[in-house]
Formats: sequence, C-alpha cells, structure tokens
Amino acid sequence: MPATVKLVDENCPDPRVQAVFKDIKETKNIDRIPNVWRALATYPEHLELCWTRLKAIMRPGKLDMLTKEIIALAVSVTNGCEYCINSHTAAVKKLGLDNEGLGEVLAVVGLYNTMNRMADAYQIEPDILPPVE
Amino acid sequence: MPATVKLVDENCPDPRVQAVFKDIKETKNIDRIPNVWRALATYPEHLELCWTRLKAIMRPGKLDMLTKEIIALAVSVTNGCEYCINSHTAAVKKLGLDNEGLGEVLAVVGLYNTMNRMADAYQIEPDILPPVE
Amino acid sequence: MPATVKLVDENCPDPRVQAVFKDIKETKNIDRIPNVWRALATYPEHLELCWTRLKAIMRPGKLDMLTKEIIALAVSVTNGCEYCINSHTAAVKKLGLDNEGLGEVLAVVGLYNTMNRMADAYQIEPDILPPVE
Amino acid sequence: MPATVKLVDENCPDPRVQAVFKDIKETKNIDRIPNVWRALATYPEHLELCWTRLKAIMRPGKLDMLTKEIIALAVSVTNGCEYCINSHTAAVKKLGLDNEGLGEVLAVVGLYNTMNRMADAYQIEPDILPPVE
Amino acid sequence: MPATVKLVDENCPDPRVQAVFKDIKETKNIDRIPNVWRALATYPEHLELCWTRLKAIMRPGKLDMLTKEIIALAVSVTNGCEYCINSHTAAVKKLGLDNEGLGEVLAVVGLYNTMNRMADAYQIEPDILPPVE
Amino acid sequence: MPATVKLVDENCPDPRVQAVFKDIKETKNIDRIPNVWRALATYPEHLELCWTRLKAIMRPGKLDMLTKEIIALAVSVTNGCEYCINSHTAAVKKLGLDNEGLGEVLAVVGLYNTMNRMADAYQIEPDILPPVE
Repeated sequence: MPATVKLVDENCPDPRVQAVFKDIKETKNIDRIPNVWRALATYPEHLELCWTRLKAIMRPGKLDMLTKEIIALAVSVTNGCEYCINSHTAAVKKLGLDNEGLGEVLAVVGLYNTMNRMADAYQIEPDILPPVE
Repeated sequence: MPATVKLVDENCPDPRVQAVFKDIKETKNIDRIPNVWRALATYPEHLELCWTRLKAIMRPGKLDMLTKEIIALAVSVTNGCEYCINSHTAAVKKLGLDNEGLGEVLAVVGLYNTMNRMADAYQIEPDILPPVE
Repeated sequence: MPATVKLVDENCPDPRVQAVFKDIKETKNIDRIPNVWRALATYPEHLELCWTRLKAIMRPGKLDMLTKEIIALAVSVTNGCEYCINSHTAAVKKLGLDNEGLGEVLAVVGLYNTMNRMADAYQIEPDILPPVE
Repeated sequence: MPATVKLVDENCPDPRVQAVFKDIKETKNIDRIPNVWRALATYPEHLELCWTRLKAIMRPGKLDMLTKEIIALAVSVTNGCEYCINSHTAAVKKLGLDNEGLGEVLAVVGLYNTMNRMADAYQIEPDILPPVE
Repeated sequence: MPATVKLVDENCPDPRVQAVFKDIKETKNIDRIPNVWRALATYPEHLELCWTRLKAIMRPGKLDMLTKEIIALAVSVTNGCEYCINSHTAAVKKLGLDNEGLGEVLAVVGLYNTMNRMADAYQIEPDILPPVE
Repeated sequence: MPATVKLVDENCPDPRVQAVFKDIKETKNIDRIPNVWRALATYPEHLELCWTRLKAIMRPGKLDMLTKEIIALAVSVTNGCEYCINSHTAAVKKLGLDNEGLGEVLAVVGLYNTMNRMADAYQIEPDILPPVE
C-alpha cells in the first residue's frame, strides 16, 4: 500500500528540508534518506522538530547506543509498529546483537506484556518501596 | 481500591504456593512477597508458570540485569501499567541508574512513542535493508 | 480523583435520561445506576446510543452471557481500564466463575499478550490456512 | 515483507528445537510447524518457554477450548496483531463458531473498546461492589 | 492477505443488509460500499448497530465534520489501524486539509503520545484544577 | 501514590530549569508549574526538549488551539493516561467546549475505538482511494 503522502524527493530544493536531509546523512553515515523522514518532510517544521529531538536523544550518554536501540525496539514491538520494528531490529543487529541476544530482548518484552496485564487485571496496590530521592 | 481477589497470605499452606513463595524470596533476596505474586497465587498453576518463566528470563545472559530491567520499564511505561512502572523504576535505581539515567531511558521511550505513530500515520513502506541472516 | 464531569443525579428530570436510567435498572435488575451511565448522561444522545447498543449486544445469542462477560474482561484487561476490569470481574464472578476460573481467563489473556508481541516482533507472515467461507 | 529473522527449518537438527517441533505437531495434530514457532526457534530457550507455557494453558480446564480461543482472538484484535488474528479466527471457526458467532465475539470486543475509553475519559470511580472473596 | 471473512456482495439480497447498504450510499454520496461494511454484513445485526451509531455521531453538531474526522484520524493513528488511517486521511483531505494541516494534526498526535508516556512513567499526581461543573 | 521521582522545586536554581519554568509560566499565563514539568526537570535536557517542542506545536497554525487540545484529549483517552485526560479536559473546557461538546468528542473517540478493532479483526484491505498528492 502506498504511503498516505507522496514522499518528498531526496533532492527537494526546500532549504529547511535540504539542511535536515544533509544532517541525517552525515550523522547516520548513510547515503539514502529513510522513508519516514521523506514523509515527515511534507511538513518541514515537524521534520526539523523530530530530527533535532532524535539527534539530541539518540547519542551515547549514561546509556550506550545499543541499549538505546534496544529500548526503541522494545517500544516499537509493544506498540506493534511494523516500520519501526524493521528498522530497529536492523539497528541492534548492526550494533552487534546476534539472534540469541535479540531473542533475549524479545523474551523480556513478551514477559512484561504478560505481567503488566496481570498487575492491571488483579488491580494490585503497589508494594511499599523505599522512598524516591 | 482493593485488588479484585483477596491476596493469598504469605504463609499459605498450599505446598505449590509455598514452594514458589520460598523460591521468590531466595532468588530475589527479599523477605516479603510482592503483591502481584500473592494475587497470582489464587490460581497456583498460573503462579508457577509465571514465576518459572520470569526466573528463566530475568537472569544475566547476553544482556545484563540492568538492561533487562530497563526493557521491563520501557514496556511497562508504553503499556501504562502503574504497578509495574513503580516496581521497575525501583529496580533500575537499585541497580545503579540515577535520575538522569532514568531520564535518558524515558526520553528514548517517549521519542519512539512519537516516531511509531508517525510511521503508522504516513503508512511508510519499510526501507530496503540488508537481508536477515 | 473526581470524575471530569459532575455525575448526573439518578433522579435527573430529563426525560431521555429518565427513560434510559429506568431501562438500565430493569434490564440489569439493579437499583442503583452505575457511575459510567451517570457520566454519559451529561450528553443524553450518547447515553442512548451507548445503552441501546450495549443492550442489543449483551444478551444471550450464539454465545452465553458468561462468555460475553469473559470477552469484556479480556478486552478491559488488555486495555488496562481500571473501572471496567473492576466491573467485569464482579460480573463473571456473579455468573459463577470462581477464582481458579478467573485465573484461567487471565492466563490466556497474559499468554496472548506475549504471543501477539512475538508475532509482531518477528514480522511473521501468516500461515497458509484453509480459505474463508 | 520478510520476517526479521530467517525462519528455522522444520528439520533443524538442534535437539531442543526438534523436541519442541515434534511436540507441537503431536499436540496440535498438524504436520507443518506454524511460522511463529519457526521464528522463536532462533532462540531455543525462549521457544521452549513459550511452548511449554502455551501447552499448559491452552487445554480444557474450567473453560473449554472454544472459550479459550475466543479470549485469544479478543486479545489479538484489541492489540491489532495481524498474524494472531488470522490464526485465532481460523481456530474458532475450526471449533465450530460460524460467521454470526464470530460477529457476536467481535461485537462484544468492539463495544468494550468503546466503553473502556468512556470510563477512562470521564475518570469514573469504581462502583461500590460486594467485597471479593 | 485476504479478509478473514468473505466480503458480502454489494447486491446481497438480505433486506437488512440491503437497507443499510442503500443508506450508506445515500448518506455518504458514494456508489461503492467500503470494504469494512461488506465485512460487517456477515452479521447483519452488528452491521445495523455500527451503521446507525456512526450515522448518529458523524454529522455536524457542536463540532464540524472536519474536526470529527480529525479526531477519527488521531484515534486511528494512536491505535495503529492501517485501514482506518488510510480512510480518515482521505476524508480529512477531501474536507480541505492540505499536507501541512495533516502534518499539524500528526505533530499533535505524536507530541501527546510522548507526553502521555512521561506522565505515566513519573506517576504524576494530577494538578489541582478548578472543580468540574 | 507518590511520583517515582521527587518533583523539582519551582525555585530550583539550575539555570536551564529556571529558564524553562519561566517560559512555561509566561507562555501559558499561569503562576504554578504543572507537576509533569517538575518531574521532567529531574533531567533538564529532556525538560528543554519536551518544552521547546510542545511550545512549537501547541500554537495556532492551520488548526486553532481548541482543535489541537481536542486532538490531545482524543490521544490521551485512547492511551488511557489519567494525568493527561484530566489536564486536557480542563483545557478544552477553558477554551469554551461545554459538556455536550465534550460528549461529542468522546462519542467520536469511542466510535473509532470500535471501528479500528472491526477493521483489524476482519483484516480488511484498504478501499481503492484517489491517489495522494
């Protein structure tokens, strides 16, 4: 099924789009713009907002890049987003996770999708935990 | 609001429940049974299934325990499960993540809850990625 | 936390609301209007639409009432709706399901919340099944 | 779109995988392994955990098999999982539910996806119900 | 992938189906029945319930039609429903929203999918707001 | 239940937090910082990202503010986020929507939560629509 908007061409002359596309290629070290950014470019202001936010968040900090991509995959699987599952599975593999490691990630994702439902179903009061700091 | 079942007493004489409760205390090195297990114990067979599965999955493997608890938190936040968010936030802090590290986890969770919706909304075809092995 | 609207009084003089409230009491054989209907009554047209639809669906057909309430509970748990989980857990118990039967329902709900995520995560093509009729 | 992992061959020599695949065929009385199990087999430990759990839960107990498959379908529809909807629709039909019965299941699923949102939207306090036992 | 039921023919002789199909064509001013209604027609009672309810809700009231279609799109994107996203994107465009307006809708949808997770994750107490009327 | 982090004081001396808190008060014309921002301030970089993004998106554009707040409410209800439902219900009322208008919003939200499930359940192919521009 085609996208709901016509994807913006990689060589789109709009300077705001050009600037973001150039930065995506350099930052991610890729030579083709992934389709999601070409769709977002139909509204350049949102393209900028999404990209600058992603760039600020998806860099090594207290967490390394593999952990961040694993979180992205766990969220995408829980939400059932096909495009994002595809893209973040590729990303964790590129960062070195093999099929068994991927299996471990998904086992944890699956487990807590069950446990979340059990906690909700029985309407369990939180345990008394040490106070937050 | 009270739970939808009467929580099973920690000293419940049912031998299947006793065995699981004992193993929970030893494995997690705690002296009180968290409420979710006391609710699951109203149906001992499911208590066993949930606990043996959790025990098999939530131990160090290719991923360390902090990464696994971070995945558990990411799933629980995406599902909006109050009990589990409470419990896994405590777990990641106990394993050494500070408030800034927690903030990083949540920033990635928040980001991909947006990006998942954008990919779905524009009905974007997956990018052509290298074949899976 | 209070509701986001002031619940409509059970003796509200609006004739559309009166008619629905009377029908709810008679159909469900109860003498107090559950809170959700008192909230919906702030917009009487939607109150009518919801009630007439529920009344048409929640009666014995090819499925009996217990099966229908079990479906309602499974949906409410998967969506994490506290009010509805509370109400449908009470309903299945009133219709004769004991804690072990409730446990069986929740075990199936938990299982497929995992299996759904696995199928999504691995982006599995549907198996070739016999054609639909 | 291809799966994110290469599906494990039905004749895979790994003894853990062999044992589970054999048990799946015998238990379900089928001669082909459904794709979801071939994907899970990329991480044999999780394959075992998922299968032994499914086998323990999906057998007649207080609930019969049709009711359990109906719950599986209700969960899969609420989560929007294409593979699982396909598979559980086939299962309930095989167990004797016709299109009108399927329509009844989906009508209840649809109804409570609305009612859950209304209860959440108006932030309704639970009704005072008889105490749980 | 084919639908899980055989879509009912547009010229189906069942009088209940005929009446609804005729009303759909007249109300929406279209000459082909959208697929979702042909699927629902496999259970004519539910077809009627869904259509009469949709017809009552999706007409100008305090909100105009574009606002209602925008809400339908926001819900469909948040739930990740491909068929409905496709259909409501077409509807908002037909009602005059251009790609930039669509981008604004999706930017708000994306933003609150993040903010919802943040509020849940930090388990924030509601702010004290003026009392409801 | 307390928040999972200690909310940052409104007079927190951190200059990045101060700047955002000041801007929130001025932009929203309020004199108390809503709790969600005080929680986000535990990780000032994410506070800035969330706020600057929200400020850029939640201002009149092709859509007016009431429409944007209605979208925010529709998303929050679909996700079941209590804090956000509370806050956006207050916002739409402040912008002039009365209880009947709120009822209309929720009726559309409820309707498409059903219709989304029906489209998914029957695995309906998208209708052939005019090509996107």
